[in-house]
Amino acid sequence: MLIGKVVGFVVSTRKCEELVGNKFMIVEPLKTMNTEKRIVAVDKVGAGIGELVLVAQGSAARVGTSNDRAPIDAAIVGIVDAGQNLDLE
Amino acid sequence: MLIGKVVGFVVSTRKCEELVGNKFMIVEPLKTMNTEKRIVAVDKVGAGIGELVLVAQGSAARVGTSNDRAPIDAAIVGIVDAGQNLDLE
Amino acid sequence: MLIGKVVGFVVSTRKCEELVGNKFMIVEPLKTMNTEKRIVAVDKVGAGIGELVLVAQGSAARVGTSNDRAPIDAAIVGIVDAGQNLDLE
Amino acid sequence: MLIGKVVGFVVSTRKCEELVGNKFMIVEPLKTMNTEKRIVAVDKVGAGIGELVLVAQGSAARVGTSNDRAPIDAAIVGIVDAGQNLDLE
Amino acid sequence: MLIGKVVGFVVSTRKCEELVGNKFMIVEPLKTMNTEKRIVAVDKVGAGIGELVLVAQGSAARVGTSNDRAPIDAAIVGIVDAGQNLDLE
Repeated sequence: MLIGKVVGFVVSTRKCEELVGNKFMIVEPLKTMNTEKRIVAVDKVGAGIGELVLVAQGSAARVGTSNDRAPIDAAIVGIVDAGQNLDLE
Repeated sequence: MLIGKVVGFVVSTRKCEELVGNKFMIVEPLKTMNTEKRIVAVDKVGAGIGELVLVAQGSAARVGTSNDRAPIDAAIVGIVDAGQNLDLE
Repeated sequence: MLIGKVVGFVVSTRKCEELVGNKFMIVEPLKTMNTEKRIVAVDKVGAGIGELVLVAQGSAARVGTSNDRAPIDAAIVGIVDAGQNLDLE
Repeated sequence: MLIGKVVGFVVSTRKCEELVGNKFMIVEPLKTMNTEKRIVAVDKVGAGIGELVLVAQGSAARVGTSNDRAPIDAAIVGIVDAGQNLDLE
Repeated sequence: MLIGKVVGFVVSTRKCEELVGNKFMIVEPLKTMNTEKRIVAVDKVGAGIGELVLVAQGSAARVGTSNDRAPIDAAIVGIVDAGQNLDLE
């Protein structure tokens, strides 16, 4: 997973049917993370702009949810409250 | 997912049977995106050259569609209409 | 998927049993592609050295084929005949 | 897999239900590894801060465990005791 | 897949139960390969230090083997004997 900040969102009216009802957030990873630049992730936890979040990528974005048939490759799976050595920048 | 612009397409006559009927678009990601350079994605939403699109990669490209048995690792799953902090370039 | 040129091949006598009968081609992606350097891909369409091809990566390499039980993470799934804005280099 | 050092952890109270009970460690890969910067990995072996660990990424993080329905894309699957040519840095 | 040289190995006593019995080799990809730096791969073919090998990554590492329930994301699936345009470095 990666830690990043929610910096924006995307609106898509014409999209695959299975994506209807999802919110697409733009996440900027922390500079210390291996994923270096922005990704678009489906929000599963009610994250808002400016919040620090945990993002799962790949098939992980579709497990344990009602989204297992949606073409999704990234999801916000947690809000980061605290931590040790987060190196926020 | 990533946000990118459709910049071209690919024609392939000799291809795996399961790929027949698909359109292969060349997508250039926005400069702010983690996927930095072009990928070829199957079009699921009727995207045209020049349109801004949402692309899912990996196994996500095959779920929720009639393409679940096609060797596809990227798909255009939405047209981007608007957003906040898209940083279009 | 990515577009690349077949530039060589690999011979492996001692290999996993499920790989027997496959041809392992070395593919050099176009400079505009996100996958920047060479990968080894199993040939599913009879591609020859010097041909421009479409390559699927990840689990996509194993679907819709007789290779679904082979440890393969990349496959040549089409020969590129033409296109718009291919930016061949 | 990659070899890295556990350098911190993340606390997330508001998260996907399937993630409850997991520990999210921040792992810094060795400089010689292909994954260059930090990732967040679920701990499956009781790793502590400062320990050298083996991390599996992608769907591998969910197999062979009780986490097969959790949105996890990286897991600490072993503690590294020794090796040859580890190039610790 | 990628072509690389086996340059070392890792010993892990405390590890996930499903990993018991596997050998974890450190593989350095050829400089021409897209995977640029080292990865740790489970050996399925009896590769030795210094040998040139073919490595499959992702879910491919777990198919067609007795390892389908082990948290493995890379595997040595063949020994490279010869080839054309290998660009060994």
